Amino acid sequence: MRLEAQWITGFVDGEGCFYVGINPHSGMGCGYQVLPEFTVVQHERDVQLLHALKAHFRCGVVRRNHGDRMAYRVRGQKHLLEHIIPFFEEHPLKTRKRTDFAKFRRIVRIMEAGGHRTAAGVEEIRRIAGQMNRGSDKRKSGPIGNGGG
Amino acid sequence: MRLEAQWITGFVDGEGCFYVGINPHSGMGCGYQVLPEFTVVQHERDVQLLHALKAHFRCGVVRRNHGDRMAYRVRGQKHLLEHIIPFFEEHPLKTRKRTDFAKFRRIVRIMEAGGHRTAAGVEEIRRIAGQMNRGSDKRKSGPIGNGGG
Repeated sequence: MRLEAQWITGFVDGEGCFYVGINPHSGMGCGYQVLPEFTVVQHERDVQLLHALKAHFRCGVVRRNHGDRMAYRVRGQKHLLEHIIPFFEEHPLKTRKRTDFAKFRRIVRIMEAGGHRTAAGVEEIRRIAGQMNRGSDKRKSGPIGNGGG
Repeated sequence: MRLEAQWITGFVDGEGCFYVGINPHSGMGCGYQVLPEFTVVQHERDVQLLHALKAHFRCGVVRRNHGDRMAYRVRGQKHLLEHIIPFFEEHPLKTRKRTDFAKFRRIVRIMEAGGHRTAAGVEEIRRIAGQMNRGSDKRKSGPIGNGGG
């Protein structure tokens, strides 16, 4: 199934989530692991659309989320910087989710510059992430069932 | 705000609902009132998108749904037949919601032919409506807070 860019933007305006997990991690220099991810969750009956998103973005994985829900998920700076972020720069979201995307992009760029390896950088990331996904549905305030914050 | 057709299709694939209420109504010949409606519910922070949908479809109303949720809603055979149904015929939905749309359209066409005023017609409508919105999110199985079935 081929997806048009505007369909993807509309669908992600409805169903997508830009999320940044910040978890204590003794193995990291500053004591924290920062995990940005882009997620779209759907009922398993529409899993073919998640695979179509994966094919479109040429990255990410489709996995069971929990129960009858499947998730398309992209983690990893490279894929986010080269595939996901440029797409939504070119095809802007229309809901307030675009402000979450802007904060998400800022965090990924701080990480690109290595900021997540410093205490000050993690503090800045934490401050930005704290302003994300406010006022949206509970179910969209963070991915469910993936161990994220 | 101008909306592209494919954005609308993607957004409705995520957030839209095609619903047919069948309510006892002593004033109707066959004892029932059939109320088909197309609804998109959003957090009030994105109410401008519901107004943009209303402007695009040139019909319907934007009202508070419940709490901080707003709804764009189209009822009435004429608006559904002339504005909503032709749009989704021309720009097909990609999720399984398209099968709900097909059933919805069938019911509105039965009504156009007057079928909802006969016992047999209501029975047929009830049978089709009973197969709609299965396996979707609870919150999408019917509009909330509008008195519908």
